[in-house]
Amino acid sequence: MADQHAQSGEDKRPTEIPVIRWEEPPEGPVLVLLDQTRLPVEEVELVCTDAPMLVEAIRSLAVRGAPLLGIAGAYGVALAAVRGFDVDDAADALAGARPTAVNLAVGVRRAQAAYRAELARSGDTDKAAEAALAAARKLHRDDAEASARMAERGLALLDELLPGGGHRVLTHCNTGSLVSGGEGTAFAVALAAHRAGQLRRLWVDETRPLLQGARLTAYEAARSGMAYTLLTDNAAGSLFAAGEVDAVLIGADRIAADGSVANKVGSYPLAVLARYHHVPFIVVAPVTTVDRDTPDGASIEVEQRAGFEVTEVTAPQVPVTGPGGGIPVAPLGTQAYNPAFDVTPPELVTAIVTEEGVVSPVTAEALAEVCARSREVTIG
Amino acid sequence: MADQHAQSGEDKRPTEIPVIRWEEPPEGPVLVLLDQTRLPVEEVELVCTDAPMLVEAIRSLAVRGAPLLGIAGAYGVALAAVRGFDVDDAADALAGARPTAVNLAVGVRRAQAAYRAELARSGDTDKAAEAALAAARKLHRDDAEASARMAERGLALLDELLPGGGHRVLTHCNTGSLVSGGEGTAFAVALAAHRAGQLRRLWVDETRPLLQGARLTAYEAARSGMAYTLLTDNAAGSLFAAGEVDAVLIGADRIAADGSVANKVGSYPLAVLARYHHVPFIVVAPVTTVDRDTPDGASIEVEQRAGFEVTEVTAPQVPVTGPGGGIPVAPLGTQAYNPAFDVTPPELVTAIVTEEGVVSPVTAEALAEVCARSREVTIG
Repeated sequence: MADQHAQSGEDKRPTEIPVIRWEEPPEGPVLVLLDQTRLPVEEVELVCTDAPMLVEAIRSLAVRGAPLLGIAGAYGVALAAVRGFDVDDAADALAGARPTAVNLAVGVRRAQAAYRAELARSGDTDKAAEAALAAARKLHRDDAEASARMAERGLALLDELLPGGGHRVLTHCNTGSLVSGGEGTAFAVALAAHRAGQLRRLWVDETRPLLQGARLTAYEAARSGMAYTLLTDNAAGSLFAAGEVDAVLIGADRIAADGSVANKVGSYPLAVLARYHHVPFIVVAPVTTVDRDTPDGASIEVEQRAGFEVTEVTAPQVPVTGPGGGIPVAPLGTQAYNPAFDVTPPELVTAIVTEEGVVSPVTAEALAEVCARSREVTIG
Repeated sequence: MADQHAQSGEDKRPTEIPVIRWEEPPEGPVLVLLDQTRLPVEEVELVCTDAPMLVEAIRSLAVRGAPLLGIAGAYGVALAAVRGFDVDDAADALAGARPTAVNLAVGVRRAQAAYRAELARSGDTDKAAEAALAAARKLHRDDAEASARMAERGLALLDELLPGGGHRVLTHCNTGSLVSGGEGTAFAVALAAHRAGQLRRLWVDETRPLLQGARLTAYEAARSGMAYTLLTDNAAGSLFAAGEVDAVLIGADRIAADGSVANKVGSYPLAVLARYHHVPFIVVAPVTTVDRDTPDGASIEVEQRAGFEVTEVTAPQVPVTGPGGGIPVAPLGTQAYNPAFDVTPPELVTAIVTEEGVVSPVTAEALAEVCARSREVTIG
């Protein structure tokens, strides 16, 4: 296929997109988010002054992506604490804003635990709020560091699985700086390959219904100067059949104890295609994504979202005419099946790359062993 | 999942959508098409007064779908003949308007052959034009009859493969009255199952990038009173994994001599999913879709369409802002991979249902045998 619009591989600066920022007084305390629903058209900031605003931002996907949701959730608890709201109520509302992404609950509970511990120690709500904020900031830093380590481990794995370089990597949804305190998960690995001169092409699934691939991953790939090509999700099959995909790299929203991976809907069909074509299917996620309380894939609750995400077309500039805020593309009254995620069983996953190590083959034992290397893996 | 919007199964009237119509003088001679790019919002007719207008309508997908393209192509030749244009020039332009759908060329060449034969016999261009028109009308009638026979054979196959009824059928793209002189191909089988009280649900893939499933199949399903549910193409994997798909029914744009099936992009991933989940993958197409001059899948030319179909969102009511007539959803300059079709190898196809019989297992010999039953299979 023609490469007339391929991005130059020369510009290797890291992407610097301010996705989440805590503002102190006098502007704050507020949590400032990049509104991801407006990308790639506009870079608009969304200022959350309290936890309910953040809950709404999470539900509307203004802020999204597993690791970033954890960071946002922790800051949300800190925001409630600093502003003197009921911290436990705020934590419950935040943790429940989206059911599948385990990192959200992890982040929320970590900040809440810090608040409670300091309150129990000193009895001082101001100090407890400071402790919650410190926990959020630490999670933010830790995530950036985890990103860098996942990228390093993921690149080493690619080089091992695909000796000779020139990787053509297919990715789904959005897993870069926009979802992370650092450079992300799966995208960070592709970016590392790009910087090492080892990425021949990033195939970007558009990721229906909300087009996170087209809107966000293409945006990040373009900013990073990667050679990338966008495709409809259903065109991936043709690429596999033509031998144009060397590896699939995706993120995860929850990984069960047995290694089942919940990720953006469309990941499972890619795993089946990858298996059929003997292509490695690699999941990149921090250990906080592993939920040891969820034994297997069947136990993962998959968020079902509103049908209008499918029956209406939305984009930042589309005038509102339908009840979902977009333009109807299906007959009125059409019912839609709209799961936000799907679940890939461990036998279809070649490897899970975490900041603590690579799990391959994916077994419950190997996953538990890698998670145990992190002192920080605490759920609930 | 909730069935709150499921359509009632009570209304079993056939859909009657006037998709193509030849108008005699004084209004004509013209070919009147239902402009499928405007559905489901508006039923707008497009009046073609000459072959170049029809070529443009074919390229823009105002008229589309393998069998209907054959009919339209034949009428296009008749239109050129009746209006006194060069018939061979018109035939070449029409036959080349879209490269993958073999029926288009078949229809064009059939009307052209009728024209030439009559011209050679009588030397009278008026009579030759009448012969071309008669050939087009016959193709139109034959296709309606073929639809009915495919529906009958397809339903019998479903009943054989899935005893007990209550079929949950997944379909891709649009294969009903809108693509046919009759009730279509794959959709006609689902409709027959619906009328027999055997269709529990029709799962309708939205079919990116042009959303023929959301716009057209949902429209036809709603008009027919079928219980249907729309989904993004990439959500089909979740349905398979949940055991919610009993069979896949799709059409075809070209079938090679070895049984390889070119159909709307996204069909091949469904075939791989169906195989992985032991679900029958059934292709429904008239024997005119079989191209004995194309030996195998690798020989099928797959139409590559403009990238803006992927990088921009279009719908009848979307205001034009991008070069492709839609609203950009990806960064400016994004390259897109946009094959209109993909190719499914015969080993992944459970059966090919034609009006002349069912080919299963799919082998070159069995396919040739069924095609030989039709006296009319002549290509080129």
